Amino acid sequence: MIEDKVSFDDFKKLDIRIGKVVSVDNHPNADKLYILKIDIGGDIKQCVAGLKQYLRPEQILNKSLAVIVNLQPAVLRGVESQVMLLAASTESTTGRDVVLVVPEKELPPGSRVS
Amino acid sequence: MIEDKVSFDDFKKLDIRIGKVVSVDNHPNADKLYILKIDIGGDIKQCVAGLKQYLRPEQILNKSLAVIVNLQPAVLRGVESQVMLLAASTESTTGRDVVLVVPEKELPPGSRVS
Repeated sequence: MIEDKVSFDDFKKLDIRIGKVVSVDNHPNADKLYILKIDIGGDIKQCVAGLKQYLRPEQILNKSLAVIVNLQPAVLRGVESQVMLLAASTESTTGRDVVLVVPEKELPPGSRVS
Repeated sequence: MIEDKVSFDDFKKLDIRIGKVVSVDNHPNADKLYILKIDIGGDIKQCVAGLKQYLRPEQILNKSLAVIVNLQPAVLRGVESQVMLLAASTESTTGRDVVLVVPEKELPPGSRVS
């Protein structure tokens, strides 16, 4: 657990949206990374995500998921990541399990998460 | 869209977990609020959530969902809210649609979202 408390105003600075994954490609310079294109509501953003050990492309493509759209862009192994998806993970006796964080029912890309 | 960018360090201050809803009750003093008890991994936290117009109790009870567990507690109409759940919403011609934000597959309560 993180003991430090965060204010609601700090949380509100994050712009979290429902995005729809429109493409999944291998990162050319990193074994564990995918390059995703995500429709966040009219705009397509690029996301570099470390999901390759856990999910196959077809388990991600066309999925709607929660995406933070106003993080400062980062460059991962030479490729820009403009948005960040949320994933949940747990450690078990059989290794690490990683799953996407998704709306329970499909909503249009760009729908706000709060 | 929120134009201001947020740093990854700011995002990391948030402790987001998978929680499982173990009870749903009406708020005694507010027509639109539920009081939920959520298992966040060994610990049960109380959450006051404005979902009553959109979801019935049985659509929430026993669900696993994404919960921010280190926000400063707030008091809503006299009842303390210790954690905040994530929900996605959209406006349509038929009104406002609100859905829970959930792990795509069930993970144990307390699993980290990042």
